[in-house]
Amino acid sequence: VPKGHQTQTRDRLIQSGAGLFAEKGFGGVSVRAICKHAGTSVNMIHHYFESKEGLLKAITEQFDSNTFATPMRLLSKPAGSPADFRSRMEMLFEETLDAYIEQRPLITVVLREQEDLAALQEFMKRFVEFLEQAKKKGFVRKELDCEMITGFFLDRIVNQVQFAPWVKRNYGSDLLGDLQYKQRWCKANLDLLVNGMVP
Amino acid sequence: VPKGHQTQTRDRLIQSGAGLFAEKGFGGVSVRAICKHAGTSVNMIHHYFESKEGLLKAITEQFDSNTFATPMRLLSKPAGSPADFRSRMEMLFEETLDAYIEQRPLITVVLREQEDLAALQEFMKRFVEFLEQAKKKGFVRKELDCEMITGFFLDRIVNQVQFAPWVKRNYGSDLLGDLQYKQRWCKANLDLLVNGMVP
Repeated sequence: VPKGHQTQTRDRLIQSGAGLFAEKGFGGVSVRAICKHAGTSVNMIHHYFESKEGLLKAITEQFDSNTFATPMRLLSKPAGSPADFRSRMEMLFEETLDAYIEQRPLITVVLREQEDLAALQEFMKRFVEFLEQAKKKGFVRKELDCEMITGFFLDRIVNQVQFAPWVKRNYGSDLLGDLQYKQRWCKANLDLLVNGMVP
Repeated sequence: VPKGHQTQTRDRLIQSGAGLFAEKGFGGVSVRAICKHAGTSVNMIHHYFESKEGLLKAITEQFDSNTFATPMRLLSKPAGSPADFRSRMEMLFEETLDAYIEQRPLITVVLREQEDLAALQEFMKRFVEFLEQAKKKGFVRKELDCEMITGFFLDRIVNQVQFAPWVKRNYGSDLLGDLQYKQRWCKANLDLLVNGMVP
């Protein structure tokens, strides 16, 4: 079997597993049902993941590494100026949003199972350091409690992506299908985060 | 049967239904299992809610009306001064957090099913109006895109409450069990929201 084919089978099992777990919960789906959905023979879960638990772990790891690699890179160097700090926040917000959109099929199951996410943890740690460095240089308000607030923009992004169908139903637009809405949403939320509500 | 007893039975079915739906998904739980868990006879779901779908609707409505009544009240009058605006945001943040904490057993199932929430919708509409009024008086920055940002603090609160076990596992504290952490978390996130990141 050529390598490309193996990767495809493994990926199909991850996608099918994520979709079925999201729909019916981890306990409500059999190994047989996942393989049937992915169009593979029943021993393939065992071959690639050892067990259903192993498949859940692989889903979590794929979400974790694919989602936080770019955000992590954007914080690798300290901000050099107030303008650089602002533009780094902008890139961070938009790139993280796009990474979540791309990983959307996996989000529901990873969130529901509340699995540990090693890359997310590394990213959050790095984000706190980045803000502390920026604070020392005066690019960030000295009152900001960096440890307590790094999750704020992730919460906003993940909910907007996960609840896109609800947003669409209630407001007529969502981030996934409407570029103009997405741009306005990004600009408005980033503006609030950077500049706050009050003058 | 006295009225109090009826209310108790109905509430028990709502609590049992929410717990089981959260654990196994709506499709993975039978009417029989819910009644057994609640310690009622099997015709009680039919009596109070007509069907399992009716029970889900009751769970959603209870969450919706209990969670957003206080936040809605806090925005009933326009802010009278910059200080009043700040103190209203502070009360709104803390009261909404407490309402979510109180309704925590119902959150998972309501979020998962992405049901419509009429009281939430009313509250969001009112919040936009409140911000627009404050903007006219100069208490809110004129660049703020009020329609796009009212969900921000709800996203932060709901995730922190829903993922409290994850937060506890990864950071050693959470909002539910540690008053000092809760106060620091509220202060820091409110400060970010009102004043932003940059000087």
